[in-house]
Amino acid sequence: MAEEKSEFIHHVYFWLAEPNNAQHKKQLIDGLRKLSKVNTIQQYHIGQPANTSRDVIDTTYSVSWCLFFANAADQDSYQVDPIHLAFVDECKHLWKTVTVYDTIAV
Amino acid sequence: MAEEKSEFIHHVYFWLAEPNNAQHKKQLIDGLRKLSKVNTIQQYHIGQPANTSRDVIDTTYSVSWCLFFANAADQDSYQVDPIHLAFVDECKHLWKTVTVYDTIAV
Repeated sequence: MAEEKSEFIHHVYFWLAEPNNAQHKKQLIDGLRKLSKVNTIQQYHIGQPANTSRDVIDTTYSVSWCLFFANAADQDSYQVDPIHLAFVDECKHLWKTVTVYDTIAV
Repeated sequence: MAEEKSEFIHHVYFWLAEPNNAQHKKQLIDGLRKLSKVNTIQQYHIGQPANTSRDVIDTTYSVSWCLFFANAADQDSYQVDPIHLAFVDECKHLWKTVTVYDTIAV
């Protein structure tokens, strides 16, 4: 029940170009595991839609990538980290769409 | 850089009915702080859009409410917890839209 101390959440939802392609999904998840080595990441979570269903729930995405950073500057540096640039280069053909929500604590 | 042990993320984005009404925003945030007392919540984060801007980033929401649960059953019980039902009752007039992403670890 402890409030998260990290200031900044960077939450990315990926829609695969081929949502039923299990190999593509695995490639993306493997890529995210490598990406998790960026050293400003305090905490990460790789997931897929849970088995919940209500009108307000978006279950259409393929993969969720939720990152916690200590502050906005650390997220900025993540964006240009060589590990991140390599991930985008290696994996960007896998997705059709991404939606990102960047959130700073209030 | 440790991977989050919680299995389940319940991430809610609220769009206020009156997005420029600071009092409404405060009421919603105060309500979320009370809601954070639900005892199955392992970790929570209350936020607002960060000062980032790229095509893929959705900055249109008013408030973010990110919860970690140990498993899907704990999130199910949160949905019907009296504290949650009271929150919805007291605060639902404040928002126009919510979008929820429920994510289970892979």
